Amino acid sequence: MALSDSRVLAEAAGAGALERLLTTTHDRMQQVNALILKRAESHVEMVPELARYLIEAGGKRLRPMLTIAAAQLFGGSKGADINYAAAVEFMHNATLLHDDVVDDSDLRRGRPAARMIWGNPASVLVGDFLLGQAFLMMVEAGDLEALGTLARAATIIAEGEVFQLAKARDFDTTPAEYDQVIRAKTATLFEAAAEVGAIAGGADAAGRQALREYGLELGLAFQLVDDVLDYRGERGTLGKNTGDDLREGKMTLPVILALTDANPGEREIITRTLGNPEASDTALAQIVAILNRHGTLDRTIEEAQGHVAKARMALATLPDSELRTLLVDIAEFYVSRVY
Amino acid sequence: MALSDSRVLAEAAGAGALERLLTTTHDRMQQVNALILKRAESHVEMVPELARYLIEAGGKRLRPMLTIAAAQLFGGSKGADINYAAAVEFMHNATLLHDDVVDDSDLRRGRPAARMIWGNPASVLVGDFLLGQAFLMMVEAGDLEALGTLARAATIIAEGEVFQLAKARDFDTTPAEYDQVIRAKTATLFEAAAEVGAIAGGADAAGRQALREYGLELGLAFQLVDDVLDYRGERGTLGKNTGDDLREGKMTLPVILALTDANPGEREIITRTLGNPEASDTALAQIVAILNRHGTLDRTIEEAQGHVAKARMALATLPDSELRTLLVDIAEFYVSRVY
Repeated sequence: MALSDSRVLAEAAGAGALERLLTTTHDRMQQVNALILKRAESHVEMVPELARYLIEAGGKRLRPMLTIAAAQLFGGSKGADINYAAAVEFMHNATLLHDDVVDDSDLRRGRPAARMIWGNPASVLVGDFLLGQAFLMMVEAGDLEALGTLARAATIIAEGEVFQLAKARDFDTTPAEYDQVIRAKTATLFEAAAEVGAIAGGADAAGRQALREYGLELGLAFQLVDDVLDYRGERGTLGKNTGDDLREGKMTLPVILALTDANPGEREIITRTLGNPEASDTALAQIVAILNRHGTLDRTIEEAQGHVAKARMALATLPDSELRTLLVDIAEFYVSRVY
Repeated sequence: MALSDSRVLAEAAGAGALERLLTTTHDRMQQVNALILKRAESHVEMVPELARYLIEAGGKRLRPMLTIAAAQLFGGSKGADINYAAAVEFMHNATLLHDDVVDDSDLRRGRPAARMIWGNPASVLVGDFLLGQAFLMMVEAGDLEALGTLARAATIIAEGEVFQLAKARDFDTTPAEYDQVIRAKTATLFEAAAEVGAIAGGADAAGRQALREYGLELGLAFQLVDDVLDYRGERGTLGKNTGDDLREGKMTLPVILALTDANPGEREIITRTLGNPEASDTALAQIVAILNRHGTLDRTIEEAQGHVAKARMALATLPDSELRTLLVDIAEFYVSRVY
C-alpha cells in the first residue's frame, strides 16, 4: 500500500478518535484527575507547586485513559482502575521530570520545563516523590499482579533511558538497538497501562495478554511518530522543540536509516551536527533534506503503521465492540498526527 | 548527666556492637549481598557498572542488617527478610545517587561519586532503576503491608529532601523544622527497615510498633551525629568531606542553634560562609570555633543521646534478649562515633 493511500485511510479511521476516547472515559477520568491532584499534595510547598505545574500543563493523559478504556472493554472496574490510571500518570510524569534533567530540556508541553523554574534538584526529587506515590496508590488498590506489572515497568523504563544515553552519538547504532530503546523507554508504560486496566476490568489471561500486546504496539507506533515529528513538526504546536533529538544526539530511526544509505559527504554532515547543542536551524534543515532524500522519515512512518496493524491484530481475538474499534482508531489517530 | 560521663558509658556499651551485629546477621547478609548483586544486573552495561561501583564501595549496610536483626528478634523469617533487606539497601542507594546529583557532591564513601564518572544523567536513571528493583523485590515477597511501608517511606524521603532543599540558606530555620527534615530524609528509612524486618519475623502489632519506634529514634540519632561529624570529622576517614553541609548551605542543628545565640559579628560570619561552595578551610575553622564557643556541637550530641534513650525505651516492652541488648548497643555505638 502506498503511503498516500495509507494516509487517507488512517485519517478517515483516526478522525475523531481522540474525542471519542475523551468522551468514553470522561466520567472515570474526572475521578482520576481528582485523585491526581489530591495525591500531588504535600506539606512541603514546593512539591505540589512543581507537580501541579507539570500535571496541569496536561498533555492529553493518553496513558491513564488507556487504563480506563481497557477496564471498560472488560465490563468496567469497581474502583481499582482509578488508582491504576492515576499511578500510571504519576509514573509518566516522574519520568518526564527526570528526562528533562537528563536531556537538559528547556521546554515541556509548550512551557518552560519545571527544572527551568525550580531547578534540577527539585525536579529529580519531586520525580521521586511522584514515583513513590504511584506505588502507594497501587498498594492501596491491593493487587500484587498489577503492582508487579508497574514495578517491572519502572525498572525497564529506567534501563531503556540508560541504554538511550549510552547510545547517544553512537553512529553505529542499529535499528534493532533503537527498537530495544523505544520498547523499554516508551512502549513499556503503554503496555503496563493497558494491562493494569485489563486486570482492573477482570480480564482473563487471554484478554490481559491481548491488551498487553495492544499497548506495546501502540507505544511503539507512538514513539516512532514522535521521532518523525522531531524533524517534521512545527515549533510550538507540540510543546516540543523541533530538532531536540538532533541537538541531544539521540539516535532515532530516521537518522539510523539515513546513516546506512548516506554518501560520505552526507554522513559527515550528520555526524558533525548530531549532538551539537548549538546546531542552527539551517543545520537542522540540512539534515531534514538528507532524511527526505533517503525517504527515512516516510520509512519510519511505515514502520509505525506496521505496529498499528499489530495493535489491531492483538485485539482481533476479543469480541467485536465499539470500544475495541475505538482502541484501534486511537492507534491510527496517533500515526495520522504525522501527516 | 555530664557529657564526659555519657561518653564513658556510651563507649563501653557501644564497644564491639557493630562487630556483634555483623556476626549475628552474617549468614543472612551473605544471601542479601548475593541478591543485591544479582538484582543490579542488566543487559544495559552501564546499569550494573554504576550500581556495583556504588554498592561495592559498601558502607556497612547498616539498614539491611537492621532488617535482618529485627526479623531475628521475633524468631527469624522464612525468606522475606532477605528480599526486604535488599530492597531497603536499594532504596538507600537510589537515594544516595540522587542526593549526590542534588548536592553536586564530588565524593561518596571515600571515592569519587558515581556522577563524577558516569555523569548526572546516568546517576539519576540508575537511581530510578534501583528504586524500581526495590519495589519489584518487595512485590515478589508478596506482603502488601510491608510494601506499603516502603512505598510510604519513598514518598516521605523525597518530601524531606525537597524540604531540606527549600530550607537551604534559610537562616530562620527552626530546630523543629530541622527535626522535620531529618525525620523524613533519614529516620524514615531506618524506621521502615526495622518495621519490615519485624513483619518478616512475624511480629505482632505491638512488636512491629516497637521496632518502628526504635528504627525512627536510631535514625534521628544517626543523622544528628552525622551532622556533627560534618564539622568535627576528619577528611577521608568518613568518605565524606568535612564542611560539605556548610558549603551546600544545609541548615543543620549545630548551625541553627549557633545562629540563635550568636552575636551580630558571628552571625555575619555564618551567613556569609554558609552556602558558599568556595568556602575555605580557614572559613570552616572559623565557623567551627563559633559552634564550639556556643557549645552547639555538644548540644547536638546530647540531642542524639536523647534519641538513643528513646530507642532503648521503645524496645523495653519486648522480652529481654541478647539481640535486644545488641540493638540498643548499636544505637549507643553510632553516637560514640562522634567522640
